[in-house]
Amino acid sequence: MHTFLERVNSPQDIKKLTFAELTLLAGEIRSLIIETVARSGGHLAPNLGVVELTLALHKVFDSPQDKMIWDVGHQSYVHKILTGRGGALHELRQMGGISGFPKRSESEHDAFATGHASTSISAAVGMAVARDMSGQDNHVLAVIGDGSLTGGQAYEALNHAGHIGTKLIVVLNDNEMSIARNVGAMSGYLAKIRTAPGYAKVKQDLEHLLRRIPSIGDRMVQTAERLKDSVRHFFIPGMLFEELGFTYLGPIDGHDLADLTGLLEKAKQMSGPVVLHVLTRKGKGYAPAERNADIFHGVGPFHAATGEIIKKDGPPTYTRVFGDTLLTLAEADKNIAAITAAMPEGTGLKAFAGRFPARFFDVGIAEPHAVTMAAAMACEGKKPVIALYSTFGQRAYDQVLHDVCLQELPVVLALDRAGLVGEDGPTHHGVFDYSYLRHIPNLICMAPKDEGELRHMLYTALQGNRPVALRYPRGSGIGIGVDLSEPLQVLPVGQAEVLRLGRDVNLVAIGSMVNPCQQAAAQLQEQGIDAGVVNARFVKPLDRSVIHLLAETGPLITVEENVLAGGFGSAVLECLSDQGLAGSRVLRLGLPDEFIEHGAHALLLKKYSLDANGIARQTAGFLRQLFPE
Amino acid sequence: MHTFLERVNSPQDIKKLTFAELTLLAGEIRSLIIETVARSGGHLAPNLGVVELTLALHKVFDSPQDKMIWDVGHQSYVHKILTGRGGALHELRQMGGISGFPKRSESEHDAFATGHASTSISAAVGMAVARDMSGQDNHVLAVIGDGSLTGGQAYEALNHAGHIGTKLIVVLNDNEMSIARNVGAMSGYLAKIRTAPGYAKVKQDLEHLLRRIPSIGDRMVQTAERLKDSVRHFFIPGMLFEELGFTYLGPIDGHDLADLTGLLEKAKQMSGPVVLHVLTRKGKGYAPAERNADIFHGVGPFHAATGEIIKKDGPPTYTRVFGDTLLTLAEADKNIAAITAAMPEGTGLKAFAGRFPARFFDVGIAEPHAVTMAAAMACEGKKPVIALYSTFGQRAYDQVLHDVCLQELPVVLALDRAGLVGEDGPTHHGVFDYSYLRHIPNLICMAPKDEGELRHMLYTALQGNRPVALRYPRGSGIGIGVDLSEPLQVLPVGQAEVLRLGRDVNLVAIGSMVNPCQQAAAQLQEQGIDAGVVNARFVKPLDRSVIHLLAETGPLITVEENVLAGGFGSAVLECLSDQGLAGSRVLRLGLPDEFIEHGAHALLLKKYSLDANGIARQTAGFLRQLFPE
Ligand SMILES: [Mg+2]
Ligand SMILES: [Mg+2]
Repeated sequence: MHTFLERVNSPQDIKKLTFAELTLLAGEIRSLIIETVARSGGHLAPNLGVVELTLALHKVFDSPQDKMIWDVGHQSYVHKILTGRGGALHELRQMGGISGFPKRSESEHDAFATGHASTSISAAVGMAVARDMSGQDNHVLAVIGDGSLTGGQAYEALNHAGHIGTKLIVVLNDNEMSIARNVGAMSGYLAKIRTAPGYAKVKQDLEHLLRRIPSIGDRMVQTAERLKDSVRHFFIPGMLFEELGFTYLGPIDGHDLADLTGLLEKAKQMSGPVVLHVLTRKGKGYAPAERNADIFHGVGPFHAATGEIIKKDGPPTYTRVFGDTLLTLAEADKNIAAITAAMPEGTGLKAFAGRFPARFFDVGIAEPHAVTMAAAMACEGKKPVIALYSTFGQRAYDQVLHDVCLQELPVVLALDRAGLVGEDGPTHHGVFDYSYLRHIPNLICMAPKDEGELRHMLYTALQGNRPVALRYPRGSGIGIGVDLSEPLQVLPVGQAEVLRLGRDVNLVAIGSMVNPCQQAAAQLQEQGIDAGVVNARFVKPLDRSVIHLLAETGPLITVEENVLAGGFGSAVLECLSDQGLAGSRVLRLGLPDEFIEHGAHALLLKKYSLDANGIARQTAGFLRQLFPE
Repeated sequence: MHTFLERVNSPQDIKKLTFAELTLLAGEIRSLIIETVARSGGHLAPNLGVVELTLALHKVFDSPQDKMIWDVGHQSYVHKILTGRGGALHELRQMGGISGFPKRSESEHDAFATGHASTSISAAVGMAVARDMSGQDNHVLAVIGDGSLTGGQAYEALNHAGHIGTKLIVVLNDNEMSIARNVGAMSGYLAKIRTAPGYAKVKQDLEHLLRRIPSIGDRMVQTAERLKDSVRHFFIPGMLFEELGFTYLGPIDGHDLADLTGLLEKAKQMSGPVVLHVLTRKGKGYAPAERNADIFHGVGPFHAATGEIIKKDGPPTYTRVFGDTLLTLAEADKNIAAITAAMPEGTGLKAFAGRFPARFFDVGIAEPHAVTMAAAMACEGKKPVIALYSTFGQRAYDQVLHDVCLQELPVVLALDRAGLVGEDGPTHHGVFDYSYLRHIPNLICMAPKDEGELRHMLYTALQGNRPVALRYPRGSGIGIGVDLSEPLQVLPVGQAEVLRLGRDVNLVAIGSMVNPCQQAAAQLQEQGIDAGVVNARFVKPLDRSVIHLLAETGPLITVEENVLAGGFGSAVLECLSDQGLAGSRVLRLGLPDEFIEHGAHALLLKKYSLDANGIARQTAGFLRQLFPE
């Protein structure tokens, strides 16, 4: 069925195909991607949008000598197919299968791993200067979306590239949206370019006009000359890029293979930095995705024929509970504001945005700005809540420390997708936040055991007058016996919840690990081991008295969905050491000191022994070791 | 002597003064600042450059109702003088005295604390939207230098502000340099604006010309109309800002009080976001500082009459040893490259830049870009060394994790000014790096005990094929018996150096704390306590076997110039716990869980008991507690 696809095993195979054949190949690639993502989920719309662009890139340039860097990287499926990984696509994002993002260890054609936005131009600059140092002449390309261009790092790199002036090509893949609709003045600027009619014509007319101007004295001639010089600058779109030292080419239709290859060939000949502005359509060629590009951006399984999403029944997600609770709280307190970095849907803030547009701020992919802005709002008596994914919160580490916590400002950092996120893998796992947050003075750091507790924690965070980080996992929680209509309570800051004291051992769990620990305790009971479970609630301030009590009672096991280094268990060790409780028997369970691969969340928890079975097994093992028969 | 100064106790007092009186006041302010900084050091040139600007701001706007945010903040001395702190200036930057940066707890006129660059526009956006939420109408101003405009966060904020369109004023204080000469295409752009002659004239001529154009058919008329519409856009400087949604005013002479107040009044009347481009001269009014603005940017004591810097004799600084060693290594290895984020002098890379311009990269105040760029260079076989101040490294936490360590790329992160930096205070202390780095997988993290060891560590870092962070303190080390001509050695990674095993207790110190521990051990010896000292060298990987051995021997004390939370001692606790060495007697010395104030380094070490006396005292106390008579 896939007749052309079968012939493509490397980029070299693309070069032999005619445009007509490439068009047929594009169709086959779309079918393969739709099939694959419909079955097991993934990033659909971004990949359908770059089929022709990716074909043109591989037709004109020579990977791996020429370096292609895919910003964010979720649009790299076509590139993977064209570089010998079409056959592996059926295992995409599954444990042991190929990654949903470029990965150097996977292929020599993946020049640079990406995942977080706005890094590609920096990487291109690095590869370009490395090439210059070596006296080579290969090409370096960054393919970056209009959304990623809202991230400050992209501008830092454009600014530096324009300054250096060496050869590199920035392909601006402009589909008028990042994940949600784009925000920012830059996106307005790009829209202006797109919609302005016939620049070429205007330029031609202007030159004609200038030739007809009578000579009217020195000053006017100077002006006219100036005007001529400026024509190129002023009447081409992309002037902003030109001002930064780039040559701007475009905009062109990103689905026209002939235009694309033509302009890429032109870019290839130029000597300095070039921006090539390509207009693409997200979801191109699959009607449901064209209609709903945000839903089909990253999507779970769906019916390929209809585009109907396969609904999973289940409890509401943490994201949803967070968004609903914040909305309710904002009804009662007009000082509450919500901030997202280009993720209104992903962070559950869409309803808030609709209900309180004047208190909702989508800042673009700009976490540093989001956090400093929130700090300033807090100075003025507002209660800003910034909802970010844990992994993207890493971008704003310094702003959390320097702008929020140093000034002790009441900003709430809501970190969604904390812990292992599953199929998106190592670039996206939110497994460092306890470690990167808990050493920051003045910060309260907490994590709920379930969706119900998330509500109370958000309420608690907004009642206090302190900086708070609140982390919760991706997807749904246990959903059993969690009453989401319970009146909101202020939780005592720094107090753990002792669910049950154990005679033989106590499991002190934080956040998502409380429930598996309860299951593990039930398993252990059957083995004759009486294990207590404590819901720590706070990584900081830690409940020192409960930790003290438990340590004096017997062995203690800390459990967290975070790296062990510097994490929650590490805080418990510090607490015990500070209290002079040498001799405590402590086992810390969590993630090892390595980057965790992609794969289903449940499989990863199992592999790292953080599911109920693993926790029970490790607990029993620890007790056997402490008390050999 | 200071006749006008004595009359100025609040911004209200400025408003009554005539321009002539303000000019005299400006002179008095300059004298006061020169005197003060000559005596005890500080930021001279930036403050001399903004005397008139600050006077004009306080004449036109009403602080504290109107919010003034000083980007970076080291140019806020004039503002401090005008807001009732002139009398406290003699204690500037000294322990217990006023801060060298804006600080909310110090004055209601310090709207937002700054220290790290490029945050001010974000803060202004936050204060502007907070104002809008409250239905107020106060003004919000960000005063930002051209250097800070190279930081991506400034662009994120401009982009967002342009999108929102609410009223705020960005005062671009353009002195053509940050600390060193500015880099980046943006700075070229600003230079173009500055040097372009008579834009107003050109605009006038052009309109005249357009009126004279004969009608030549529909298409041409359209072009002409288009041209007219565009005149404002195309023939004013600052078009780049206009494209981002700002109204651009300027450029104007930042030392002309009448011009300044006039244009500020105009900006005050406008309804949307405004950029006001002010040209100032760093060091203005003090010839030595005008001539050498980079030397007088941040400076130690000097002779006010001559500008002669008061030289301290002493061993070379860590910075110098780092720079010299890197230069030597680069002579032998053409793959070595050096990267700085606008600090070629401060990081000791000036000689390198002169010797190897093609391998030296000053990226502007753009730490995220610097790190990702280095990662890409490493992909291509280069050996990039990024020299940053520890505190600014916080800006690139995500890039170190996501771009360098996840891909396991051999990038060397040289973190200068680690530990307490002294007078610059809490925004600049480099006391978090062990904590924000050591939980990142694949990273080697080390710190030398002295300048000699720094050489070997840099050599070791460049010999390996792994990501390395290397941190060292500000200023000079012990300088005694350190042989800087010793042949470079590769240190075994993950191995501590046991300087002397103690019978009663062992001090395990890292980096800057090794030497005070040796002194403490000598003091303890006199008290009859035999204390050993171990130079840990590596925070990661930790020398597990030495830690094991020491823990079995007796009490163990970890000592670090870093926050205790998640730091080196925390790593030692984890190591002991993992090895099942419960029962170990460990005391962790380091900095408490709070932001540390400004003050002389020695005074701060004393206060936090991290000098030899403090370490000895705490060691003796710990032993008394463990073994009461
Ligand atoms: Mg887009
Ligand atoms: Mg400057």
